[in-house]
Amino acid sequence: MSEKAPAPEAARLPLTGLRVIELGHYIAAPFATRLLADLGAEVIKVEPPEGDPVRGWGSAVNGNAVWFSVHGRNKLSVTLDLKSAEGKAKVRQLVGRADALVENFRPGQLERYGLGPADLHAVNPRLVIARVSGYGQDGPYRDKPAFGAIGEAMGGLRHLTANPGQTELPPPRCGVSISDDLAGMYAAMGLVAACWQVKGDPQALGRVIDVDLVSSVFSLMEGMLPEYGLFGWVRQPQGAAIKTAAPTNTYPCADGKWLCIAGNSDLIFKRLMAAIGKSGMAAEPRFANNALRCENVAELDAVIAAWTRTLPAAEAEAILEKAEVPCSRLYDMRDCAEDPHFRARELVMQVEDPLIGPILHPAAPFRFDGVSPREMVRWTGPAAGAHNEQVFRMLEEEAKP
Amino acid sequence: MSEKAPAPEAARLPLTGLRVIELGHYIAAPFATRLLADLGAEVIKVEPPEGDPVRGWGSAVNGNAVWFSVHGRNKLSVTLDLKSAEGKAKVRQLVGRADALVENFRPGQLERYGLGPADLHAVNPRLVIARVSGYGQDGPYRDKPAFGAIGEAMGGLRHLTANPGQTELPPPRCGVSISDDLAGMYAAMGLVAACWQVKGDPQALGRVIDVDLVSSVFSLMEGMLPEYGLFGWVRQPQGAAIKTAAPTNTYPCADGKWLCIAGNSDLIFKRLMAAIGKSGMAAEPRFANNALRCENVAELDAVIAAWTRTLPAAEAEAILEKAEVPCSRLYDMRDCAEDPHFRARELVMQVEDPLIGPILHPAAPFRFDGVSPREMVRWTGPAAGAHNEQVFRMLEEEAKP
Repeated sequence: MSEKAPAPEAARLPLTGLRVIELGHYIAAPFATRLLADLGAEVIKVEPPEGDPVRGWGSAVNGNAVWFSVHGRNKLSVTLDLKSAEGKAKVRQLVGRADALVENFRPGQLERYGLGPADLHAVNPRLVIARVSGYGQDGPYRDKPAFGAIGEAMGGLRHLTANPGQTELPPPRCGVSISDDLAGMYAAMGLVAACWQVKGDPQALGRVIDVDLVSSVFSLMEGMLPEYGLFGWVRQPQGAAIKTAAPTNTYPCADGKWLCIAGNSDLIFKRLMAAIGKSGMAAEPRFANNALRCENVAELDAVIAAWTRTLPAAEAEAILEKAEVPCSRLYDMRDCAEDPHFRARELVMQVEDPLIGPILHPAAPFRFDGVSPREMVRWTGPAAGAHNEQVFRMLEEEAKP
Repeated sequence: MSEKAPAPEAARLPLTGLRVIELGHYIAAPFATRLLADLGAEVIKVEPPEGDPVRGWGSAVNGNAVWFSVHGRNKLSVTLDLKSAEGKAKVRQLVGRADALVENFRPGQLERYGLGPADLHAVNPRLVIARVSGYGQDGPYRDKPAFGAIGEAMGGLRHLTANPGQTELPPPRCGVSISDDLAGMYAAMGLVAACWQVKGDPQALGRVIDVDLVSSVFSLMEGMLPEYGLFGWVRQPQGAAIKTAAPTNTYPCADGKWLCIAGNSDLIFKRLMAAIGKSGMAAEPRFANNALRCENVAELDAVIAAWTRTLPAAEAEAILEKAEVPCSRLYDMRDCAEDPHFRARELVMQVEDPLIGPILHPAAPFRFDGVSPREMVRWTGPAAGAHNEQVFRMLEEEAKP
């Protein structure tokens, strides 16, 4: 990656030595700590004796959910009952020896356990606490039940992910837990920033960070809020096309797959039309520039789709790539897993899960010079409570004078 | 947010004192530095004399793009020609006095300018460098042109954001620059993690971080990769419904808007059906539990949609909220801007932009105890080169022995 050989001291994960406690469940907080663990933090996940409910989701091998192999990787798991005096005491012990904590209980729940920020800061005033919730720790909707799609819906994303005025079908979900993921990413980012601040200053106190699903999605709305405020414009969904660039759309192929093509610059447009055998059409004055092509886009889209319909997506893609026309078929998981670039970059890696056997893992989404993607998967998601003995013994050792 | 009053020393933004140089344009790198700037970092954006092309995008007031008021906020802007000897020298001066740098040129471009990681580390060995690209800094696709939708398409998201087998229409875009945003977030997170590492260790050297659009999107694919590897399953899009939970879907309303309803638990289902005047149906044995409801979901969806079609979305939402049924209409920008929760949390704030006038800004997506959302918007996106004099004078001052 970098031209110079990495210095030996750089060949460590960046967050080595940072200890983070997770009081999390389902997706958002565990995703935040998964990212921190990939970065080298020592994450101790605290679960109820029966385990995080997400361990029961989706397909499993020998009772072990395959998603959890990824979702729980690089973490230590301990089981504690937060309602019991012993469980609370152990959490306080953990917190006394940690740099940070991530939680995603409903607002007020940790306080009811006697483990709210004030309680935790009484034990460790330098603790950084990141809280994730549906709507945030205050405001009129604070106590409303948060459900999966709420962030997408209320943050403005679902309204935009649609084919407007063309279908009776509802706007589809993103297909992944996008609002939880975004909130988890912001929680991780805010947490590391606050730890950076604390690290430099022996007087610094820990911070409480408030992240929520709705604001996290809303943060991606580009210039839409000022546009509404200044001009009263309300951005509407655009489907798969871009109104101001033509031809740029997603086209159906012979095998039922879709091909995304960005052919809107003058030169690329000519190459695209030559590749599909329509050079004559490309030369017509009414397609001479992007503005004119936008006016006559329906005709162009029809001609391009007529061509893509005759070929499987991968074949059409290969022809356009050769013509240097930017395009990509819509990858499904097989496409991702078998793609040579994904394999070369070790975006897809086979690792050994002691509970499951050989299993494919995705790489961490960042790579650091001197560290291979494989090094960043230190171990797979452990069984609930797998590290009880190790962690509790470690606490005793560290508590010794 | 926290129960205790914030200590005075905590009432500062967490990244105060971190200096970050941006060699960025368009979305991904500038979004990364926007988040860092919101967190308090001193971000110096280096632009070509004619400015970042994104300044010409979308609607404008007096020639100032309204999106840039948000996208460029809290940053200092300097203009430099990276092709000129003077421009390169100034970048080296900036880098000599900085903690980190973010760039999103095409792989190899900075090296051609003589400003690659080796060059920059020769000036400042502790500099953390975050690089954002379409496909990453190596691998067979490294030099392929990256376009906006590529990450969405190749990372696996566009395949899932669809109404499968029900429509001839292509899967819609997310409606925002999701892959750029995700990559920017990971770049910011990796950068702060590496700065945390460097801060604690006088011997530590800077790192090079490689983030790309495709891996960033691919990181959200949950358990789909191990599922494919173990069982050969390829996750297919599910539209707006959830196959394993019923009724949970998005329903059309009288005003053309959509209402997302999550009514799949037994108790909530009963409350939902009572609220729409169908208690009798809720009592029928074939709807007695979630598994049975999933089997007979078409009938349920039809009955619920028949009810939602009679009411504007906000009215139907109010009725279901009173019945404690989790739901949300799909917010458009007017809904967001006018919502009492958004206003109470200052997710939507009116600020003064000296170039544009009064303008609405979204809050930073994280809040820290003792810091109001308003404090986190220190200034709006400046004109290109607005800080040339200030920054270059600062460099001279700092260079004095």
